Amino acid sequence: MHGQTASWQFSAPAIEEIFSLPHQLACMTRFEWALIAALEANGVVPGGSAGVVEPLLDAGFADAHAIRAESERAGNIAIPFVRALTAAVRERDEAVARFVHFGATSQDVLDTALALQMREALGLLQTELAKLGTSLEALARAHRETILAGRSWLQAGPPVTLGLKAASWLNAIRRHRERLASVAPRALTLQFGGAVGTLASLGDQGTAVSAVLAKKLGLREPAMPWHTQRDNLVEVATILGLLVGTLGKMGRDISLLMQTEVGEVAEPRAAGRGGSSTMPHKHNPIASAVMLAAAMRVPALVATLLGAMVQEHERGLGGWQAEWETMPEIFRLTAASLARAIELADGLEVDPDRMRSNFQANLGLGLSEAVVAALAPAMGRDEAHRILERATGEALAQKKHLREILAATPEVRVHLTESNFDRLFDPRNYLGSTGQFIDRALGNGGPA
Amino acid sequence: MHGQTASWQFSAPAIEEIFSLPHQLACMTRFEWALIAALEANGVVPGGSAGVVEPLLDAGFADAHAIRAESERAGNIAIPFVRALTAAVRERDEAVARFVHFGATSQDVLDTALALQMREALGLLQTELAKLGTSLEALARAHRETILAGRSWLQAGPPVTLGLKAASWLNAIRRHRERLASVAPRALTLQFGGAVGTLASLGDQGTAVSAVLAKKLGLREPAMPWHTQRDNLVEVATILGLLVGTLGKMGRDISLLMQTEVGEVAEPRAAGRGGSSTMPHKHNPIASAVMLAAAMRVPALVATLLGAMVQEHERGLGGWQAEWETMPEIFRLTAASLARAIELADGLEVDPDRMRSNFQANLGLGLSEAVVAALAPAMGRDEAHRILERATGEALAQKKHLREILAATPEVRVHLTESNFDRLFDPRNYLGSTGQFIDRALGNGGPA
Amino acid sequence: MHGQTASWQFSAPAIEEIFSLPHQLACMTRFEWALIAALEANGVVPGGSAGVVEPLLDAGFADAHAIRAESERAGNIAIPFVRALTAAVRERDEAVARFVHFGATSQDVLDTALALQMREALGLLQTELAKLGTSLEALARAHRETILAGRSWLQAGPPVTLGLKAASWLNAIRRHRERLASVAPRALTLQFGGAVGTLASLGDQGTAVSAVLAKKLGLREPAMPWHTQRDNLVEVATILGLLVGTLGKMGRDISLLMQTEVGEVAEPRAAGRGGSSTMPHKHNPIASAVMLAAAMRVPALVATLLGAMVQEHERGLGGWQAEWETMPEIFRLTAASLARAIELADGLEVDPDRMRSNFQANLGLGLSEAVVAALAPAMGRDEAHRILERATGEALAQKKHLREILAATPEVRVHLTESNFDRLFDPRNYLGSTGQFIDRALGNGGPA
Amino acid sequence: MHGQTASWQFSAPAIEEIFSLPHQLACMTRFEWALIAALEANGVVPGGSAGVVEPLLDAGFADAHAIRAESERAGNIAIPFVRALTAAVRERDEAVARFVHFGATSQDVLDTALALQMREALGLLQTELAKLGTSLEALARAHRETILAGRSWLQAGPPVTLGLKAASWLNAIRRHRERLASVAPRALTLQFGGAVGTLASLGDQGTAVSAVLAKKLGLREPAMPWHTQRDNLVEVATILGLLVGTLGKMGRDISLLMQTEVGEVAEPRAAGRGGSSTMPHKHNPIASAVMLAAAMRVPALVATLLGAMVQEHERGLGGWQAEWETMPEIFRLTAASLARAIELADGLEVDPDRMRSNFQANLGLGLSEAVVAALAPAMGRDEAHRILERATGEALAQKKHLREILAATPEVRVHLTESNFDRLFDPRNYLGSTGQFIDRALGNGGPA
Repeated sequence: MHGQTASWQFSAPAIEEIFSLPHQLACMTRFEWALIAALEANGVVPGGSAGVVEPLLDAGFADAHAIRAESERAGNIAIPFVRALTAAVRERDEAVARFVHFGATSQDVLDTALALQMREALGLLQTELAKLGTSLEALARAHRETILAGRSWLQAGPPVTLGLKAASWLNAIRRHRERLASVAPRALTLQFGGAVGTLASLGDQGTAVSAVLAKKLGLREPAMPWHTQRDNLVEVATILGLLVGTLGKMGRDISLLMQTEVGEVAEPRAAGRGGSSTMPHKHNPIASAVMLAAAMRVPALVATLLGAMVQEHERGLGGWQAEWETMPEIFRLTAASLARAIELADGLEVDPDRMRSNFQANLGLGLSEAVVAALAPAMGRDEAHRILERATGEALAQKKHLREILAATPEVRVHLTESNFDRLFDPRNYLGSTGQFIDRALGNGGPA
Repeated sequence: MHGQTASWQFSAPAIEEIFSLPHQLACMTRFEWALIAALEANGVVPGGSAGVVEPLLDAGFADAHAIRAESERAGNIAIPFVRALTAAVRERDEAVARFVHFGATSQDVLDTALALQMREALGLLQTELAKLGTSLEALARAHRETILAGRSWLQAGPPVTLGLKAASWLNAIRRHRERLASVAPRALTLQFGGAVGTLASLGDQGTAVSAVLAKKLGLREPAMPWHTQRDNLVEVATILGLLVGTLGKMGRDISLLMQTEVGEVAEPRAAGRGGSSTMPHKHNPIASAVMLAAAMRVPALVATLLGAMVQEHERGLGGWQAEWETMPEIFRLTAASLARAIELADGLEVDPDRMRSNFQANLGLGLSEAVVAALAPAMGRDEAHRILERATGEALAQKKHLREILAATPEVRVHLTESNFDRLFDPRNYLGSTGQFIDRALGNGGPA
Repeated sequence: MHGQTASWQFSAPAIEEIFSLPHQLACMTRFEWALIAALEANGVVPGGSAGVVEPLLDAGFADAHAIRAESERAGNIAIPFVRALTAAVRERDEAVARFVHFGATSQDVLDTALALQMREALGLLQTELAKLGTSLEALARAHRETILAGRSWLQAGPPVTLGLKAASWLNAIRRHRERLASVAPRALTLQFGGAVGTLASLGDQGTAVSAVLAKKLGLREPAMPWHTQRDNLVEVATILGLLVGTLGKMGRDISLLMQTEVGEVAEPRAAGRGGSSTMPHKHNPIASAVMLAAAMRVPALVATLLGAMVQEHERGLGGWQAEWETMPEIFRLTAASLARAIELADGLEVDPDRMRSNFQANLGLGLSEAVVAALAPAMGRDEAHRILERATGEALAQKKHLREILAATPEVRVHLTESNFDRLFDPRNYLGSTGQFIDRALGNGGPA
Repeated sequence: MHGQTASWQFSAPAIEEIFSLPHQLACMTRFEWALIAALEANGVVPGGSAGVVEPLLDAGFADAHAIRAESERAGNIAIPFVRALTAAVRERDEAVARFVHFGATSQDVLDTALALQMREALGLLQTELAKLGTSLEALARAHRETILAGRSWLQAGPPVTLGLKAASWLNAIRRHRERLASVAPRALTLQFGGAVGTLASLGDQGTAVSAVLAKKLGLREPAMPWHTQRDNLVEVATILGLLVGTLGKMGRDISLLMQTEVGEVAEPRAAGRGGSSTMPHKHNPIASAVMLAAAMRVPALVATLLGAMVQEHERGLGGWQAEWETMPEIFRLTAASLARAIELADGLEVDPDRMRSNFQANLGLGLSEAVVAALAPAMGRDEAHRILERATGEALAQKKHLREILAATPEVRVHLTESNFDRLFDPRNYLGSTGQFIDRALGNGGPA
């Protein structure tokens, strides 16, 4: 229902497909098929049993609507699903039907299906992150020397370049890619434990069946079932939370740069994109809005999952159920935010002239630190700081350029010549390590 | 999408209907119709204009799918919706079409539609709360004297009655009903301000139009537009948060009483309800699970809305968008939890014998406080406490009833006779104000 | 420890004092004294008993450090506190000492002390809110006609006045004052129930003692104990959450207006206030930073309390303990944010010239809606919107004023004269209901 | 202030010491000393300069109270701190004083000090986690075969062993140790960027100075400053959140097992530990209470940090400040919870007899699944499930043992003999892979 009430901005069709009920049922069927295959491999059921289930892998036998309706009484969708699957198998082979879901509990099939869904979703996010990375690299390269004011506490300061901003986004995205890559094997884990996590109904064959089952599904075999130990699962959510935070920061930066009074960048333009129902000239930062909104919503959803980790005994009450809708929601919002970020990184309109003129309009104050640094060796940082504090105050009060004020300040003139001033007030000379930082983010040497 | 992936346990069909896109579009149409009517009443458009729009009130003209799709570019659904409505009106009357949405901005129609949706949803919740209240009253009356152990820190203590438990749930539900009733007029408020909340395009007729518009819709007219002042809206969410917390507490209590080792109550039984895919005898507390899960999820959603209150200037960026899916989600989860609570209050199975035998099995320790109280006047609370601490320790160590231990304790025997013991160890004599508290919760005198 | 690690910006000394351990112990002593007095009034203890306790009301008898240390083993501070108080009373009167804490449980004294502390804290917040209200009223009056650009999605639009902005903050603050006033009686409630909330050790005198106890403390007598029904308590937190959200919005607005590129307002200046360790000219929005940070932190703390409402049976495990530090933290952050808001409302530096020049620098686009409105009656909103969309596009592309573009547009010229243009491009003529909205916020008629 | 108002249960002295203001100032001094040393190594300041600062490393020169007070105006503690340090250095060497804090900004010294504090805190947590691991290993070994009911949805089911429960906690703790170990190098990173992260005042020496600085402090050198890219920092918080969730689960399990009606374990007893002010026999689960309360509080604090990642441009406003108190709070609560967990793992009282008798009291229902499994090959899971559903219903209704019911059920008797029953109803025969799972958690082969 929810996607329906909202703008499609928050949609991410491929992710929604992965977490749709029909696809979930298909993943659940895959688990049950693999379980039969593992039982077969261990001699519990006769050879050929898995082959009986294989044609059902698309879950076409399952009436999603009916299963959802029955789940209200059953308490979860696995119970009516297993009933439907068993019936479908029985039509094909009575003997195999007896072993459908053998040894497993509802949570085994639901958690494992989630692992399969997450594998697809994480693959998709990685692809998208790679795209974003490529676009940000291009941006960092293209604007390596495009100067604009650095900003601190929303106050303009010394110069940076737009390439440095892009490099900083890029650098964080690289870390998120590494995190997802490193956490995926831990999270993409089979769940298989039976009623209380002992695989008791399999006698002494539990771990042998489990090993084959994991292998068939391409999932990691855990040390033991994790029905009420959710850390590997929730860890994925925390990393998506970190990623969404980075994207929110990017959206905040871009929307601030796009303010009418700043006007240094703009979201890509297209017919009908980001218009207003009242103001014809409006060009709204609609991608940034999604990235910001996602960054406001996902942290709370992560907190829900962290709080829901307190699950009772062998199988919990309430905490597990709190995950069911929350986890897909986090994936959906992450994917939506990521799609908007790619859109921005690809099509960002940049106005280097406006960047330059905004920097100049700040009366040279953005280079006051350079003057402090130039004066510090001679008079100490404190004294230089004091002089500049006064000079910048005068510049602001008189709306004069700092250079003019300083040129009229005797204790400064004894240390600085006109050519010193030329050099000091050219922002290109006050970029410090900017180039090196960009290189590092681009992977050209230095720490990662 | 999300409701689809989860069990239907979390569904609340009537609420989902209210927040569905088709119904939202109908509410948006109602706003636009009332706006034309208000313009008509103020002489801005000719008499009869509203009549032109009236046949469109069911929003049948709107292709929900297309509007949702266009919203991706537009940034919200209001822009394509207004376009569709204008076209539909134009087919009926070119002149009226020129005034569709006149003076309004996208957020006006979206926020006002939300107010209309919330009015329906709050009405529905109030009806459900009344039902729950009635069932809890019946429970409180029926089990006014049904004794079970009071429990503190999950340790059994002095006796209470099941009626007192029900009265305590009931008392909180009454407060939530009052809260919702008192907050509704504040929250069910017209939004109408135009682009930046000044109603500038209406010249000096803004407030006059606004007053009629509010009246037509049966909504409160605010002092001024509240595009970026969301407190009235978020307040509703906080109260739903409080309600869900109370229901979660009720679910926790019932699920703890329903533990195998306690067995004092059970969720209602029905064919296929709360079964297990592995354990035939299982009767799972599926209603409690939903109430607990909702109480884990809603607080985070409320936090999202509180955090999203930081909205910029006259119309915000990100914060407003973060509300779109969150508010309906809170309503849905509240309604789902409430439906389960009614189910429990109506059909709770109670086992008074088990309550009694559990109380007795605690070796009389639940009445140790009564003995302290009986001894305190003679020897001081400290001394009495010390004696009982030792005696209860012995009772536990020797698995003997406390009465037996105390009867063998000389410093106790000098103060207490056999008939004192009879009285002290009958839990019906140690209920204190229980009856009065139940009466108060039932509205029979005393503070509310 | 926490206040210590952070800047004092987050401190609010009066609130910290209220929630300090020594003051908490004094409030706890007041509960125990009033309990003796209530027992005396009901003939449980002899006349004069309360007088014995009265000299101890300052809690001077209690070694805060020792009590805190003992609480580690005891599980709460009430247990060692009652021990210390009993000892102190015993030194004065052995008989009275026997009745210290009679009938009460640890949570009774801790919750009631919290109610007493909250009464003080809420009183203090109300005083501060009144101050803020007065300052915002002055701001609304002084800048009733100070024009600046309205902003939507961070894009400049039609004009508003600074007075309207202040009125909008003021209007929300008024609502918060009403909320706190209406919720206080509900929240400032006695807790008195004994071990499991039945007042059993008082026999049939429970409610009589309770009534006197509440009266002595000036607290509301509840229908029944609320040990595990925390809604009244948490409701206070939610309202503080709403208030902090409003203050965060005010901080966001001010910090955006204070951006170097906007420069329309500035936080008050004072020697050493908001300087930078590196940039001499920096004047940082340090008050806004606190208001924003509080608005990021409090929602999560409110969520903690909402989540912790799920408390077990008659006395909970974990949930109650989760409140202990969280509630004072919410009060402290609220008070800190409020103190900064008063600072801003009192001393905000306003630059009306910059507001005007920023508005003009937007090429008249902020009045494009006025032109649409002027043209709509003649050609329909859609057509007018289309023309202006094109015209504003040209204005932006050619960096020409919109008026110039429109003057050269034939289909516009047929409808608008030069004098129409004069009127349309004077922002004072496009303020709509601004004045009335300000009046309403100031309480001069109209809906509140 | 906050630790003061609460029980000492939430305290973790060593962590509080690390995050105390005096220690923070010492870490900040270490940064400034190392910076002078790095400048010296790069020839910016003369040899011997760092030696001048070295005697100040204990931060004895800093008046913590005064610095905190001044921070209110300055906006952070770094500004008054740098002033105080500069003065102290000036007393020793005027020339060196000129280079104190050279090239750095307030956030450089504050973030780097935090990295140094976190290094200590993480070291401490790892030590504690190792202790907990050792205790849990001992528990898993000692109770490898101590049978109790497995529980699902709070309903008793097939048997598990207490060793398996301990193994499951242990297994999660091992993962948290690995996570912390793997994330530490990423998080323990130098912050050094100057005003806007370009190290501009160091000209082309920025990265060279940075490299030495990182090395001197034993911190990782980042690719670029991370003033507004907080993912590495927040990642630590998320992992602590996961850890606290696991500990909360452990506290929930233990407190449920300790319920009066279950009585299978008890928190360690000690004089005055977990007593009650009213109920002499009470033995409260006070350690579990802390672990549960921490698990309710930390998720929200993690959400605060995730939400605060949206930091503006080169240096943020509000988000950074929101971290200041939140991060230490998360460390403190984690440490407090961990301390209680060690206490429990070390001193848990176990009652194997009660475990056995509780299991038996469930009428053999906990082994119904075993019977299903035994019957399934012959009649199919569905049919077996149906028979057992009926039989367990009868067992419950007639309060007879399931074995008795089944023995009287003809369709069962044709498949099962008395000796089958003997085997089926001995819980030791229905532990499945329990032993292997414990072995794996103990590191004795199999997947980790």
